[in-house]
Amino acid sequence: MKSSLGGLSVLPFASFVDLITSDQELQRELRSEPRKRLRELGIKIGTMETGLLNAITDVDGIKVGQTTIIKGQGKGAARTGVTVIFPHSGNIYEDNLFASYFDLNGWGEMTGIASLENTGLLQTPIFLTGTVNVGIVYAAAMKYLCRVNPNMGVTEEVSYPIVAECLDDDLSDTPSCPISEEDVFKAIEEAKGGPVAEGAVGGGTGMTLFDFKGGIGTSSRRTKDGYTVGVLVMANTANREELRIDGVPVGRKIQGYDYKPGNTKSIIMIAATDAPLLPFQLKKIAKRVAHGLAQTGAISHTGSGDIILAFSTANHIPKNGSVSVHAIKSVNDFNITPLYQATVEATQEAILNALTMAQTMVGRDGNTAFGIPLDQVQTIMKKYSW
Amino acid sequence: MKSSLGGLSVLPFASFVDLITSDQELQRELRSEPRKRLRELGIKIGTMETGLLNAITDVDGIKVGQTTIIKGQGKGAARTGVTVIFPHSGNIYEDNLFASYFDLNGWGEMTGIASLENTGLLQTPIFLTGTVNVGIVYAAAMKYLCRVNPNMGVTEEVSYPIVAECLDDDLSDTPSCPISEEDVFKAIEEAKGGPVAEGAVGGGTGMTLFDFKGGIGTSSRRTKDGYTVGVLVMANTANREELRIDGVPVGRKIQGYDYKPGNTKSIIMIAATDAPLLPFQLKKIAKRVAHGLAQTGAISHTGSGDIILAFSTANHIPKNGSVSVHAIKSVNDFNITPLYQATVEATQEAILNALTMAQTMVGRDGNTAFGIPLDQVQTIMKKYSW
Amino acid sequence: MKSSLGGLSVLPFASFVDLITSDQELQRELRSEPRKRLRELGIKIGTMETGLLNAITDVDGIKVGQTTIIKGQGKGAARTGVTVIFPHSGNIYEDNLFASYFDLNGWGEMTGIASLENTGLLQTPIFLTGTVNVGIVYAAAMKYLCRVNPNMGVTEEVSYPIVAECLDDDLSDTPSCPISEEDVFKAIEEAKGGPVAEGAVGGGTGMTLFDFKGGIGTSSRRTKDGYTVGVLVMANTANREELRIDGVPVGRKIQGYDYKPGNTKSIIMIAATDAPLLPFQLKKIAKRVAHGLAQTGAISHTGSGDIILAFSTANHIPKNGSVSVHAIKSVNDFNITPLYQATVEATQEAILNALTMAQTMVGRDGNTAFGIPLDQVQTIMKKYSW
Amino acid sequence: MKSSLGGLSVLPFASFVDLITSDQELQRELRSEPRKRLRELGIKIGTMETGLLNAITDVDGIKVGQTTIIKGQGKGAARTGVTVIFPHSGNIYEDNLFASYFDLNGWGEMTGIASLENTGLLQTPIFLTGTVNVGIVYAAAMKYLCRVNPNMGVTEEVSYPIVAECLDDDLSDTPSCPISEEDVFKAIEEAKGGPVAEGAVGGGTGMTLFDFKGGIGTSSRRTKDGYTVGVLVMANTANREELRIDGVPVGRKIQGYDYKPGNTKSIIMIAATDAPLLPFQLKKIAKRVAHGLAQTGAISHTGSGDIILAFSTANHIPKNGSVSVHAIKSVNDFNITPLYQATVEATQEAILNALTMAQTMVGRDGNTAFGIPLDQVQTIMKKYSW
Repeated sequence: MKSSLGGLSVLPFASFVDLITSDQELQRELRSEPRKRLRELGIKIGTMETGLLNAITDVDGIKVGQTTIIKGQGKGAARTGVTVIFPHSGNIYEDNLFASYFDLNGWGEMTGIASLENTGLLQTPIFLTGTVNVGIVYAAAMKYLCRVNPNMGVTEEVSYPIVAECLDDDLSDTPSCPISEEDVFKAIEEAKGGPVAEGAVGGGTGMTLFDFKGGIGTSSRRTKDGYTVGVLVMANTANREELRIDGVPVGRKIQGYDYKPGNTKSIIMIAATDAPLLPFQLKKIAKRVAHGLAQTGAISHTGSGDIILAFSTANHIPKNGSVSVHAIKSVNDFNITPLYQATVEATQEAILNALTMAQTMVGRDGNTAFGIPLDQVQTIMKKYSW
Repeated sequence: MKSSLGGLSVLPFASFVDLITSDQELQRELRSEPRKRLRELGIKIGTMETGLLNAITDVDGIKVGQTTIIKGQGKGAARTGVTVIFPHSGNIYEDNLFASYFDLNGWGEMTGIASLENTGLLQTPIFLTGTVNVGIVYAAAMKYLCRVNPNMGVTEEVSYPIVAECLDDDLSDTPSCPISEEDVFKAIEEAKGGPVAEGAVGGGTGMTLFDFKGGIGTSSRRTKDGYTVGVLVMANTANREELRIDGVPVGRKIQGYDYKPGNTKSIIMIAATDAPLLPFQLKKIAKRVAHGLAQTGAISHTGSGDIILAFSTANHIPKNGSVSVHAIKSVNDFNITPLYQATVEATQEAILNALTMAQTMVGRDGNTAFGIPLDQVQTIMKKYSW
Repeated sequence: MKSSLGGLSVLPFASFVDLITSDQELQRELRSEPRKRLRELGIKIGTMETGLLNAITDVDGIKVGQTTIIKGQGKGAARTGVTVIFPHSGNIYEDNLFASYFDLNGWGEMTGIASLENTGLLQTPIFLTGTVNVGIVYAAAMKYLCRVNPNMGVTEEVSYPIVAECLDDDLSDTPSCPISEEDVFKAIEEAKGGPVAEGAVGGGTGMTLFDFKGGIGTSSRRTKDGYTVGVLVMANTANREELRIDGVPVGRKIQGYDYKPGNTKSIIMIAATDAPLLPFQLKKIAKRVAHGLAQTGAISHTGSGDIILAFSTANHIPKNGSVSVHAIKSVNDFNITPLYQATVEATQEAILNALTMAQTMVGRDGNTAFGIPLDQVQTIMKKYSW
Repeated sequence: MKSSLGGLSVLPFASFVDLITSDQELQRELRSEPRKRLRELGIKIGTMETGLLNAITDVDGIKVGQTTIIKGQGKGAARTGVTVIFPHSGNIYEDNLFASYFDLNGWGEMTGIASLENTGLLQTPIFLTGTVNVGIVYAAAMKYLCRVNPNMGVTEEVSYPIVAECLDDDLSDTPSCPISEEDVFKAIEEAKGGPVAEGAVGGGTGMTLFDFKGGIGTSSRRTKDGYTVGVLVMANTANREELRIDGVPVGRKIQGYDYKPGNTKSIIMIAATDAPLLPFQLKKIAKRVAHGLAQTGAISHTGSGDIILAFSTANHIPKNGSVSVHAIKSVNDFNITPLYQATVEATQEAILNALTMAQTMVGRDGNTAFGIPLDQVQTIMKKYSW
């Protein structure tokens, strides 16, 4: 069967990659497909301005690191990785941030949430990865925390790593558990501000979205009050017919690219803002992340682990008893609606960036997730442009 | 300024009603504007079939009663009422149903939720009304329960009425608290199955939606497994520019009908199904109601009391200790996704029915909420029809 | 059968009151039994110091008002009332406080909790009353708010009254709904700082506790950091054999005073502190209120509406958009444990004060709730004193 | 300084163990101190009957496996381990049970709770361990699940392991992360019904309780309806002065045994029952576990990760879509109170069994946790016996 990639008629990818003999070659080929962010396609979501990079890193101090693992084909093929978000540029163990959590459809895993809800604090970096990697990533995260905070678990309180996952089993041979602690440390070491790689990278390497290739996506918005909201998603959810781009039912209009859905999937969504918000306000932000997901057309299937975490970088809470009373700032709830709008818009665009930036990938047993055909997307959107 | 109502060019309503001298005449005039349900305009939401009536009453046994109060003009004008939903045709006090609650943005009131969450049960009818009426409706509901269950609060457990509200202060002179217990009893007595009046009726009489006139709306869907999901909303929320109909940004395309938003608003959404669901599953249904709201474009402003209740009519739980162990049925979560889709679709259409069915209304101090111009809606939708 | 009241051998109360012909006489007689607070009996709970009054009013600014209704005997007898807590001395509508809620076993009613959880704010006085009075108290509370805040529901946001209840049906003829709006206004007008009447007063007039007479109780503690925690309970719960006073199983040791339990009962517990705490911290305080209840031996029966609200008077949050960012203080969680201990101790003692301060009461149909015999309490406690 | 152990005057343990040269000898010595369960000391909690073994394994089908790691002294000393609870005798991955979770003071970790709350199901064994082991235990648990369910993560849904922890840093050199995946598999393999080892074993090996040695404890109760409630705790919390045994303030009466508290601690509590309960009912059971903890005198300090999970073995829910509707049984809430009482009693006794069964242990850097002196406990309890 032939399929159409990027508007070109080519050999089916599964056959194509049979010709590839080395992992290096495989990675190079997989990455050769030109991909664009949604705005590069001329499509905007909403009415607010983006931040400079249109990324979660527009929230000052946030750093993102990613390790991408693409190894082998057929049985034992690995298409997985890890993405780590450092919520500020300092030592998050010593210097905590307010955070909250919303379980939209928590058929998935996010560790550390009991502690996050009890303390209202984010106390560690946030790790995103494939399902079977959670344990090893957690172990590595704990070792990292012990290393940079030698007194943790000796004379000082432990922090509980946030590790969230989606199932990358369609493309990756998950029972082989391909991630090592070194892969996690590598992501940590490479974490930086600036542009964030999107699509089939990091924790999102092996994921699918609206039955096309998905993965990591990000976006941001700025309010008139000068606050920034950034969202980063690891997107692995929803069926094609659900897909809406700015309301247009693109998923129902796209031709070709048959893909048989496997198990139900998940999406992890992280929202960050420099607006000073308290934990109960961040829970309200997290609920607007759910609104953003819904506005892409997703209905959150039963097995989809749709889990949301929101944090604010504005108030720094020291992790010790040295200060008896914290002085905190908090946006007046009467003025918070622009932050809600920013969240809804940035979430949508982050999900759609994960979609448009993800190139076609062939994984275990020849399973292929096609990058959404950008030419078709543009054609459909032009037809219904408002 | 002239404005266009239902395709006709007429005097601005605020001037128009100055000519009216009696409440009867006022009510007649206000109701003379022809309104249609969304499907009567040729617009469908989603892909699933509706129930026979496309209403919450498609769930067998559900009865709805409404009292509409339209009195006076200017200072002291009342545009309010009460809508009551009987969740089954028997005595809900003696014969409870599983239910759950989701606080999407609970800046509003729904009484009885502590009991509902603790017992997992809906034990009373559900009352929807304007904000200042909550106390009197609660008192009337309690009297009604005492009357039909003479042992309640004597030898048997009390049930706590579910009374939810939205603020109808733009059109109604709320501090005058115009509802009486008799108005509540009247709604109870008139409750029946069959078609449900929509728009500016019952609890929704004085409400606005997307800066047009809003109120009560309902819709339903049937799954291939033969289950029905029905949704009824009392809709009083969101700004015009948010409005999307099937993804089309109708709110940004409509011409004219300036309306200065007052305080932020609310929406109460009730989902019912005959599918056998447990309380934790109904909470997941309630979260899909939120998805449905989001897909109309709403972002849930800070002051909007967006509160959701979901119940299932399938398992009847007797309110006493006569049975030591209940035999219960529950849909397998692996098969629940069609109910989610049904909920998302029915919620959207219920909200949009509240919008298209609500006629223009002039309330206190000449404040006017215009019915959304159906001709413009149709024109815009045709332009972008997929 | 003779029974022993306060150490004196008297006629059974049910016969005794048959001799009484007027409500005034009835009230006088019922109040003639000498009662004492726990500390007046020489019993202390815990190790921390109490506030000056050992009452919730030790938290600066808190005012309590109570209307007690004792009317008639037999059928139609009323033993009910309302207790109102003003959380500070200003206008709580304009000047909100952080608050949170914990549903320990919410088979009861507390209105206004959706709004409280969404905003993190207490925006109205707190009303405690008998079950069937909730509607009328809510309506009166709303009228009161409209009166002192004429723009509420017109140009300003509505606040949703907190009205909580326990079932006083054993002593009061509840279906007769004996409370009027005037009774509520009276409690509001009489609210004041200083000592708080305890036992069979206000909302607690008709309640029972550990199968003895219960009602309103209060206590407070001061931490070494100079913070005060005050607790006020409306206590109507638990069976006699559960009762522990400072660990001693007093309920199992008391002789006589047979009382047939009616329906299961409830307890509403309100904790206040002048320590600056955020909503998520107040939820943790509320959970320690549950610990305090447990340490009295209560197991929280199925039908007991055990509902807890906690608020802090330290941060005042204006109810409007005039301030874009609030400056807030918050106790460091590393230093919060003394507030937990204060809460556990004050809750226990508040419950026990409700018990020891409540005099014997005869209600509808001659139903009699005996005041716990203080002489027996003292004798038992002395035997096991540590 | 000399201290009194088990009624005998001996050398301080820290010196004592200096004489020990091998790990085998160390383990033998540490275990030589005679310990007893609470009932063997003649002390009963509550009034209900225990199950046959007075252990969680009285709930039919439950199996417990434990690996205890005691290695080295001084720097690098390991006093840790893992305890695994199999909730039934079959394959819990394929055959799920209803469960719920209560975060009493979640400054700790329990993985898998998003999934547990979303599905209402326990889908894996429950693992209890020391804090730094969570990652490796999670990884091993996932491997175990993949091994016994080869299609997991390939054609079938993943289950998310429940791994909960307390910090054993006072006795164990936690940053050295001494547990291996083999240790976890060993606990899994050795899991069995019957008596459960208590005290300093398994996950509880290095833990302290009321400033004495703590660890694993268990207890059970039977209701008159023939249901069993079993509780197993990993107890590592509270200060000595809080300790109450059946209400007697034993902690304040014990002489000697100075112990300087380190960081604040945690307690994980698992309740199981064969009574058919739905998830929302199991949450109510979990809240009574908190009552049981409170009745031991604990106030749940700020840093204590007090996390509770409750499950029912009565309804088996297959983990696939083969059955469209489950037939389920559920205890009538009107008859549930005896299960609450059973839970409160069993929790208390499980905690106290962890205390009385735990022998003195010397850990890293000579840190010593003394077994509570049983002779003093008995003497104190006799003095205040009721």
